[in-house]
Amino acid sequence: MRPLDPLNTLDIGFLGLGTMGSAMAANLVRAGHRVCVWNRSAEPVAALVARGARRATTPTDVAQTKYLISMLADDKAAREVLLDDAVIRRLAPDGVHMSMSTISVALARELTAAHTSLGRSYLAAPVLGRPDLAASGNLTILAAGAAPLIARAQPVLNCLGRVTWPVGDEPAQANAVKLAFNVMLASAIEAMGEATALVNAHGVRTKSFIELLTSTLFQGPVYATYGALLAERRYRPAGFKLSLGLKDVRLALEASDAAHVHMPFANILRDHLSSAVQRGDGDLDLAALAERALGSPR
Amino acid sequence: MRPLDPLNTLDIGFLGLGTMGSAMAANLVRAGHRVCVWNRSAEPVAALVARGARRATTPTDVAQTKYLISMLADDKAAREVLLDDAVIRRLAPDGVHMSMSTISVALARELTAAHTSLGRSYLAAPVLGRPDLAASGNLTILAAGAAPLIARAQPVLNCLGRVTWPVGDEPAQANAVKLAFNVMLASAIEAMGEATALVNAHGVRTKSFIELLTSTLFQGPVYATYGALLAERRYRPAGFKLSLGLKDVRLALEASDAAHVHMPFANILRDHLSSAVQRGDGDLDLAALAERALGSPR
Amino acid sequence: MRPLDPLNTLDIGFLGLGTMGSAMAANLVRAGHRVCVWNRSAEPVAALVARGARRATTPTDVAQTKYLISMLADDKAAREVLLDDAVIRRLAPDGVHMSMSTISVALARELTAAHTSLGRSYLAAPVLGRPDLAASGNLTILAAGAAPLIARAQPVLNCLGRVTWPVGDEPAQANAVKLAFNVMLASAIEAMGEATALVNAHGVRTKSFIELLTSTLFQGPVYATYGALLAERRYRPAGFKLSLGLKDVRLALEASDAAHVHMPFANILRDHLSSAVQRGDGDLDLAALAERALGSPR
Amino acid sequence: MRPLDPLNTLDIGFLGLGTMGSAMAANLVRAGHRVCVWNRSAEPVAALVARGARRATTPTDVAQTKYLISMLADDKAAREVLLDDAVIRRLAPDGVHMSMSTISVALARELTAAHTSLGRSYLAAPVLGRPDLAASGNLTILAAGAAPLIARAQPVLNCLGRVTWPVGDEPAQANAVKLAFNVMLASAIEAMGEATALVNAHGVRTKSFIELLTSTLFQGPVYATYGALLAERRYRPAGFKLSLGLKDVRLALEASDAAHVHMPFANILRDHLSSAVQRGDGDLDLAALAERALGSPR
Repeated sequence: MRPLDPLNTLDIGFLGLGTMGSAMAANLVRAGHRVCVWNRSAEPVAALVARGARRATTPTDVAQTKYLISMLADDKAAREVLLDDAVIRRLAPDGVHMSMSTISVALARELTAAHTSLGRSYLAAPVLGRPDLAASGNLTILAAGAAPLIARAQPVLNCLGRVTWPVGDEPAQANAVKLAFNVMLASAIEAMGEATALVNAHGVRTKSFIELLTSTLFQGPVYATYGALLAERRYRPAGFKLSLGLKDVRLALEASDAAHVHMPFANILRDHLSSAVQRGDGDLDLAALAERALGSPR
Repeated sequence: MRPLDPLNTLDIGFLGLGTMGSAMAANLVRAGHRVCVWNRSAEPVAALVARGARRATTPTDVAQTKYLISMLADDKAAREVLLDDAVIRRLAPDGVHMSMSTISVALARELTAAHTSLGRSYLAAPVLGRPDLAASGNLTILAAGAAPLIARAQPVLNCLGRVTWPVGDEPAQANAVKLAFNVMLASAIEAMGEATALVNAHGVRTKSFIELLTSTLFQGPVYATYGALLAERRYRPAGFKLSLGLKDVRLALEASDAAHVHMPFANILRDHLSSAVQRGDGDLDLAALAERALGSPR
Repeated sequence: MRPLDPLNTLDIGFLGLGTMGSAMAANLVRAGHRVCVWNRSAEPVAALVARGARRATTPTDVAQTKYLISMLADDKAAREVLLDDAVIRRLAPDGVHMSMSTISVALARELTAAHTSLGRSYLAAPVLGRPDLAASGNLTILAAGAAPLIARAQPVLNCLGRVTWPVGDEPAQANAVKLAFNVMLASAIEAMGEATALVNAHGVRTKSFIELLTSTLFQGPVYATYGALLAERRYRPAGFKLSLGLKDVRLALEASDAAHVHMPFANILRDHLSSAVQRGDGDLDLAALAERALGSPR
Repeated sequence: MRPLDPLNTLDIGFLGLGTMGSAMAANLVRAGHRVCVWNRSAEPVAALVARGARRATTPTDVAQTKYLISMLADDKAAREVLLDDAVIRRLAPDGVHMSMSTISVALARELTAAHTSLGRSYLAAPVLGRPDLAASGNLTILAAGAAPLIARAQPVLNCLGRVTWPVGDEPAQANAVKLAFNVMLASAIEAMGEATALVNAHGVRTKSFIELLTSTLFQGPVYATYGALLAERRYRPAGFKLSLGLKDVRLALEASDAAHVHMPFANILRDHLSSAVQRGDGDLDLAALAERALGSPR
């Protein structure tokens, strides 16, 4: 990325510096934008400041901008930080708030309503991709909201992702799509686990089988990434924490149950992930979901 | 494919001319081999004879060869035709029987034992791929059995598939792997169905979502093929019949249950597929499994 | 019930006059107590007033008493009516609020905290039994809260139930127990449905099978009541509405999920009940849950 | 039981002396009948001979009688012993074979056909009840077959059970009903386990909850018996072995799957029971199925 023409330098506020958020904010700094950051704990803020970001003491200070990005851990954090009139009001009237974390469909609707009632603009832009893709600016961004709004946000989104897919006019739609992706992701892992357990029981080794799968019918990033982790039973460090996978499957079940849509696979995923968290595996990579099926190592 | 040097022309017997078998046998004829065929019903035999194959009146006649391929519909058919001493005995002592259909692990073991006790050679070589790949000789072949035996069969297998993966020394292992693949295939369809139902309920259309899936994290032949069928709800003609998918999931459950391996996803697939067969959808493509989740069209 | 000695006449406030609530309030009036009632819609209030109750215009008016009973439809109604400081504050400091409807464990905790912080006494006393038992004062009452508080409430509870079971010191425990009962109830119906479908498929008629079940190993009120409904496929009028059964199974799943307890049967019940509600059967008796398994009539 | 009038003394052959069979055969001896017994292993035979039975060396010897009872462990044993022309042919032409063990619907059909083709009479008469009821002659007998045949067998069945329920004209129907009962039994245990886990998580103890259940809505022998075992986590000695429960649930799934009937509860039971067998709990009482839900003791 080349240094920006000063005319193209944007003022961007960034709330939430977890693994993903830190990598994303760093890309914005690296692209030459003026980035003001806030995070509940101090260390990630210091790291970003060292790269050239500006520290804010409160979320409200960060919000005073034309481009506000939130990448908060979960519904609880997002609700506490964002559902505060002071934060929303401080956003520039011609600004746009891009909510990029994986939150519930219900909260997305509440946030949309809260912004609308205060005359502010809200966009959902959750992302696909693990921290390595965040770091290289190669995320896939699922954007939902008014089309002109997405267009306005595009220069910022372009620093973060390889491609932006518009998925609908209502922000909550992007969150529904993101949750659907994560259920598919976890389903792929569980299916690999069950299938591998079946062949293990007949003397075929995990590595050979995974190599066969991912070289033939099950190509593509999901099977390649998670298949490799599963084949080596390498669950640390976590690219996508199992506990976050559980959170997302629960959100998907809530969003589907409310609509009388049934997801029997997701029921199973919820129970298996919850068991894993219960026995202390919440910080492992989501790939560890397959352990339940695999049982003792082969 | 170039005409064979007469010295390389092989005598091949072929039992079972369903959609897949017919396409495979035709490739052997086209490659210049002398192919003798048998099928329970007459029409497919006539079609192959028209292409240059020789008609046999009984399976036993076909078996009198060095290369015997069986591609029978299911365990019942395979059991009736193959577990007959006369058929096995007729096979040349230095010949090899390649069992290429998707049969149970239990039957694979019985067939292995039956051949061994009569001093004959048995190889499991089930295939991955739908009829179009069979027709173009681009199947993936999962071969299991003694390595020298696989080597002996290779010239024949090369006419049928793009690649032959050795998966183990015992024939039944290839059948276990094949069943594991089919459970993964059906799992992918069910997961797409559930995920699509979730986004449908939030106003995102099936086609857009499938396009998004298959353009991003879920690339590869399975999602491309079945995603397209599902997006268009195009279930005829069936490339892989739903009723055969049910058969395979049942075989996987038998093979796993016998080994105390649990496949909760497969339980669900079995029930959904069985419901679909029950309501008359057995002849549709396996992609129709997603209909249960999708409900009324969007 | 004999007329009360005037000294034993109590002042009781009653919030929520659904089918169950109306029958319960009528018992209190019949027992000679002074009962003040409120309900969102007017008709049930008029019916109770005709029997001798006093009409209140707001929940707050009702709350001004020593014995307050709430029997509101669901969490939403209970939350709106009860989580209002004005209502709780109005309760006599030496009074007791008996929350008798099936609400969530989470709301029970919130209500307990709200009462405690205002120095008021809260008791959970959900009931087992359908409207006929409510009408005859033969409910089973599951009471949780401080033991002296249960003792204080006992004279009132005695007009409503045949027996009061103390289940713990924290009100939420009674709600957890009640939800557990309802999951067992729905599980019994689903199990009967599946078992009946199995024997139906082998030519054994539903009525004969249910008679056999309930005359031998599966005696007791649940199988007798729901078995009879299922045998006759008589789902109207609903003694316990299927939609309320769905509500309770959802609450049980929430309460279990929060505690990392897994209830695979409850997952299935939720999906089947939700399907039934979706196709318009929410107002049928919970027994109609078995229809899914039974399919077409025999 | 009073001694029989010699004219009423019957000749009875008995195959299979497991826990249940031994108790049943002893009742026949005690009632004054001439009982000839066979069992694969010798000890139980010696015990019966000590009580007055006659020892036979082969099943064929036992079969030479007017009343033949088989109570063999499972399909495998029943198939080996009974599907032998010699055994069936030896039965008196006006005799009757009462098959009293829990075998598959498919085997019941095979046995029916085998008897019919040799002009012999076959009755299915599986039983409800654990060893204590077998010992006291208080089993419930589910009889299926031609009505006159059931009448002919009645004097013998009266020594074994308190009541004989006719369930249909085809023997296999009694086996379907018996399997349906066992699925209901296991479902009741699983439901108790899940419900107990839910209340445990909220601080309600297992014993209190089970006492409440079995004193109120869930009365009757199943909940009383298994509830008590579960409350005390007392799984030895096994009245009904968990491994046999797994066998029966598998048979129920086979019988239902063949008829396109779905039993989602039974799927779950199969997996949980299979896990329990896998970790070495097959010899515990079926009540131990609840352990999966209960997790660590409370």
